[in-house]
Amino acid sequence: MAGTEQQQSPIGIFDSGYGGLTVLSEIKSLLPQYDYMYLGDNARAPYGNRSFEIVYQFTKDAVKWFFGQNCHLVILACNTASAKALRTIQQVDLPAMDPSRRVLGVIRPTVESVAGFTKTGHIGVFGTSGTINSQSYDIEITKLHPHLKVTGEACPIWVPLVENNEFDKPGADYFVKQHIHNLLKKDDKIDTIILGCTHYPLLITKIKQFLPQGIQVISQGKYVAESLKEYLQRHPEMEKRCSKDGTVRYFTTDLPGKFADMASLFLKENIEAQKINID
Amino acid sequence: MAGTEQQQSPIGIFDSGYGGLTVLSEIKSLLPQYDYMYLGDNARAPYGNRSFEIVYQFTKDAVKWFFGQNCHLVILACNTASAKALRTIQQVDLPAMDPSRRVLGVIRPTVESVAGFTKTGHIGVFGTSGTINSQSYDIEITKLHPHLKVTGEACPIWVPLVENNEFDKPGADYFVKQHIHNLLKKDDKIDTIILGCTHYPLLITKIKQFLPQGIQVISQGKYVAESLKEYLQRHPEMEKRCSKDGTVRYFTTDLPGKFADMASLFLKENIEAQKINID
Repeated sequence: MAGTEQQQSPIGIFDSGYGGLTVLSEIKSLLPQYDYMYLGDNARAPYGNRSFEIVYQFTKDAVKWFFGQNCHLVILACNTASAKALRTIQQVDLPAMDPSRRVLGVIRPTVESVAGFTKTGHIGVFGTSGTINSQSYDIEITKLHPHLKVTGEACPIWVPLVENNEFDKPGADYFVKQHIHNLLKKDDKIDTIILGCTHYPLLITKIKQFLPQGIQVISQGKYVAESLKEYLQRHPEMEKRCSKDGTVRYFTTDLPGKFADMASLFLKENIEAQKINID
Repeated sequence: MAGTEQQQSPIGIFDSGYGGLTVLSEIKSLLPQYDYMYLGDNARAPYGNRSFEIVYQFTKDAVKWFFGQNCHLVILACNTASAKALRTIQQVDLPAMDPSRRVLGVIRPTVESVAGFTKTGHIGVFGTSGTINSQSYDIEITKLHPHLKVTGEACPIWVPLVENNEFDKPGADYFVKQHIHNLLKKDDKIDTIILGCTHYPLLITKIKQFLPQGIQVISQGKYVAESLKEYLQRHPEMEKRCSKDGTVRYFTTDLPGKFADMASLFLKENIEAQKINID
């Protein structure tokens, strides 16, 4: 048992689909020495509009798969999974499955960074319906920074716009303007907006184009990467278990060819993917 | 065994999500005397961009569930399932599962109606990527009407537009115009367009608005309903097995409250739904 625990293995990065690739990209860039396994549950994506129960079940399937691959550390690079499944997996499942392993999310690192940006104390969050309805950002931000006021806006059509490669084309304008308008109508003092969905960095040029001047946009990948770096510094026992050959392997629950095509939109490089089953 | 077969039961109507409700609506209107069970596999929807293998597996799960509910006749009111799974289920699975039961699709009835509309002999098809890439409409139309020329156009963002209640709002204009333009650029002699996705009837007002005059649009529900009526007339042994209390029950693999809300967009009436598992 001790031998297994000490065996080195890649860091697992999970997303329902492709969005987590924006997070992987930042993590690879900051921590290129480690090995990574990326898994997209494309056969069951998107998670954004799904129920708590379904998201929890699907995410647990993924975590079990990573543990079966001997990963010691798994990042849920998916806001919906982080919002709806992470806490239960950390508190209920991990102690039973293997208390020496860790599952981390993307919401906490983003939230920790936010106070350094706002002057008005008014924060906006764009996310999927699942993330916004769960109020995870509101809850996590208020826990750390009780003086901040958080307002969410669900943008359910932004993921389809990205995944259909429309994110930099004129048809996206209406929907980017629409949700900026809706958010600022709810709170016109917002000076900092979190992109609370890993797909949204691909829309950042348009978002910045239509935002009033002086409003900052926080994209998660960078903060998740920095937070992972700090985590590994604070936990040398975990760091030792991470293998270090600088490789990335990609896995999907649906067609690997389609995954590879779509991944090139997010990564701006060509990759190969392997099909696996997790349910 | 004979007793079970003769027991009357509802007609099953299956879709990956909500789109099949446009078909159910037409069937109910033409054949109000029968009982129906509608199942939306919302936990795993949308099927449109999924692989053949996954769509086949998911559809088979649904058919098995209906058979477990004692349904003798199941309509796949889903173009993707009809395109990717119907033939294998009819030819491989049904003989093994129960040769007395029937599974029908939505493509054949639509295709049978098309020749009566076109004068130029040039047909267009709008559908999801799955339906268009499968070339099911081309193949089925050419089988029945070898003189017709069929051109497909995948409109993958139309389903998200419908499901996000944007189908009658200005943001949909760009994407409706875009796909009409793309289709007619491929073949400017098209005078008849099939809406090869059960979601698209909700976009029909906009589609007609942006189509050049003289091009007709065929929405499937009506033809599927007429075809079912004829099928039951030709197969009195099946007709006898259909229960006739004029009821409809709704089932979903995800949250029933969400299903009910969304169904009201499609049915213009309030319904109640029940959650079930099929995988």
